Amino acid sequence: MNDIVSVEVIDGGNAVRVNWHDGPPSRFHAAWLRDNSPDPGTRSADNGQKLITVGDIPTNIAVSAARAINGEAVEISFTPGATPVHFSAGFLAAGIYDRPRVTERGRTAPGVETFDAALCDRLPTGRFDEIRRDRLALGHWLAAVRRFGVALLTDGPVESGALCDVAALFGYVRETNYGRYFDVRSEVKPSNLAYTGLGLQAHTDNPYRDPAPTLQILYCLENSADGGESLVVDGFAAAQRLRDEDGAAFDMLSGYCARFEYAGTPGVRLRAKRPMIELAPDGELAAIRFNNRSTAAIVDVPYDLVPEYYRAWRAFAAIIDDPAMAVTFRLDPGQCFIVDNTRVLHARTAYTGTGTRWLQGCYPDRDGLLSTLAAIEEETGPL
Amino acid sequence: MNDIVSVEVIDGGNAVRVNWHDGPPSRFHAAWLRDNSPDPGTRSADNGQKLITVGDIPTNIAVSAARAINGEAVEISFTPGATPVHFSAGFLAAGIYDRPRVTERGRTAPGVETFDAALCDRLPTGRFDEIRRDRLALGHWLAAVRRFGVALLTDGPVESGALCDVAALFGYVRETNYGRYFDVRSEVKPSNLAYTGLGLQAHTDNPYRDPAPTLQILYCLENSADGGESLVVDGFAAAQRLRDEDGAAFDMLSGYCARFEYAGTPGVRLRAKRPMIELAPDGELAAIRFNNRSTAAIVDVPYDLVPEYYRAWRAFAAIIDDPAMAVTFRLDPGQCFIVDNTRVLHARTAYTGTGTRWLQGCYPDRDGLLSTLAAIEEETGPL
Repeated sequence: MNDIVSVEVIDGGNAVRVNWHDGPPSRFHAAWLRDNSPDPGTRSADNGQKLITVGDIPTNIAVSAARAINGEAVEISFTPGATPVHFSAGFLAAGIYDRPRVTERGRTAPGVETFDAALCDRLPTGRFDEIRRDRLALGHWLAAVRRFGVALLTDGPVESGALCDVAALFGYVRETNYGRYFDVRSEVKPSNLAYTGLGLQAHTDNPYRDPAPTLQILYCLENSADGGESLVVDGFAAAQRLRDEDGAAFDMLSGYCARFEYAGTPGVRLRAKRPMIELAPDGELAAIRFNNRSTAAIVDVPYDLVPEYYRAWRAFAAIIDDPAMAVTFRLDPGQCFIVDNTRVLHARTAYTGTGTRWLQGCYPDRDGLLSTLAAIEEETGPL
Repeated sequence: MNDIVSVEVIDGGNAVRVNWHDGPPSRFHAAWLRDNSPDPGTRSADNGQKLITVGDIPTNIAVSAARAINGEAVEISFTPGATPVHFSAGFLAAGIYDRPRVTERGRTAPGVETFDAALCDRLPTGRFDEIRRDRLALGHWLAAVRRFGVALLTDGPVESGALCDVAALFGYVRETNYGRYFDVRSEVKPSNLAYTGLGLQAHTDNPYRDPAPTLQILYCLENSADGGESLVVDGFAAAQRLRDEDGAAFDMLSGYCARFEYAGTPGVRLRAKRPMIELAPDGELAAIRFNNRSTAAIVDVPYDLVPEYYRAWRAFAAIIDDPAMAVTFRLDPGQCFIVDNTRVLHARTAYTGTGTRWLQGCYPDRDGLLSTLAAIEEETGPL
């Protein structure tokens, strides 16, 4: 695989065409090749960082000669330029940009698999002792978070703060005004409705932060109350359903910013302005922000479109509230779940009675998780 | 101010029109008013969070009666709905959304002031002991960060870790693979080109994280080397200059994602896909990501547009490198600067010689800073 059959200089030296043994040929521009050269004058041998700036690439850069080497690499001679540079077939294959564009608005990134209630039967689950001991098991668990945006973990210690040991397996906890981690249980004068026995509509946490927390771990220490079940909803699946059922509503929620606010604690006045459905410039789903408790007054939608915005918001909420979207489960002490808080909403049913429900939550960073996973995959191959 | 002259029900009860003593009248929809009602059935008296969901608002909500109360408030009766609800004039004035839209692409948020080299003479500067002691002085310093995206702090202790005491004045430090804070000085086998004596082109830190760090503090402990001066460039000013001088280039860098990567440390493989110039859906500047060392191969631009992308990138870099954009200063031990890393680029000149340059850096969260500032402003008025 990735075998190179031949390479030809095209377009007067402005580019080359690489002919692969498998798959269609791919073109690479001279400037792109010069920019991404792996030679020690371009990339630091110590750390792989680029030593040049874009301004260091001559504006008249061209390829003067190109040849394949044993099907495994390409040798490029630049003009201006001294020593020829070798590019491995693997590097070029990973960098192919000469291909038809996928432009579907609201699509997910490659590797993401959306889910609905049917995931109930196969919710990704790891065992704490196993993923702590076994790097491959850890990799599989992290890969499930990357793919589904949610995973369970069982058989952990029933110990305050244990959730930070889970986070430490792959990354770093983001401290906030709620602390490095926080207790989620009923309080007499709650600073947040999470700290009551009320049911909570499916939501992403802290959309009033910018950036919002990217991951959340919710770890169970006690759960003997009546009710208090957990459920998760894939916000990307919900957004795609909205797009397919009501494209105008999708355009409203992705095209205009909402406002979010939290002011429940003295000294804390958190505010953010972001859309409920955030898209990358290429239309890929970037993030979902949805939280009835902390949505502030909508002030960025033109007056005439406000009724349409409310209609869209209502339609999105109805999809999110649809039981067909929800994966429901009950956490026992020593169990936790992790969600990608930029994508998967979580909720709980109301709880009452003589028992106690005590969870702890924290916000690890997703980029740390994905980094650890990518490092594991360098050893194991793709997970 | 904010005096209400009268209020009238319009559009068959779908909205009201508030007539102000000063300024044009503003309309508010019945659904918006119901959603944002301050009554204890809608908002928790404990924490101000919303108790209802958008689905709880009747689809046929209407205003049946409205009257002004002493010019200070409006009383609204809803149908369906029981008790009338009071909205203060201040709340309604802050929530006005019935106004002409500002739609200029690449504009900055209200309160942001862009800068160029001329800021040299009036770079906002605080004294560590003063902002620690005096809440108003702290507020002014934080307001400067909100406005310009950069501020200096002088007369701090020459003590490893002191930068975390600066961060603790307003918020929380984000821990990463580099630690809670990190040393920036020459190393023998550097894991990052920052840890050398090389000059560094103006850049934002860690665009290979998603989200990228929002603030950075760089704190000086020693600076007896030749060179090693600091400079900052307003990325928002640079983006606006690009937009004005070369609109097509601005569209390329805001319309297509770049890729960023860091793989300089074993076990760390950080990757992100985001545009160099990020816009909110309404066209407001949201973030700048620019870092020659960690820009990975560009793979999200259609083949035919890649030369144009490089041309745009080059044009943006030339603006960023223009001395007319840069504010230059030299840090002495016990001095630090803070930058909004989503907006302001920082750089250093190369250093050599027998002396030593030792800085420490950390990444506090900007939302915490803005929250603290907003809380101070509740006491002091707008800063």
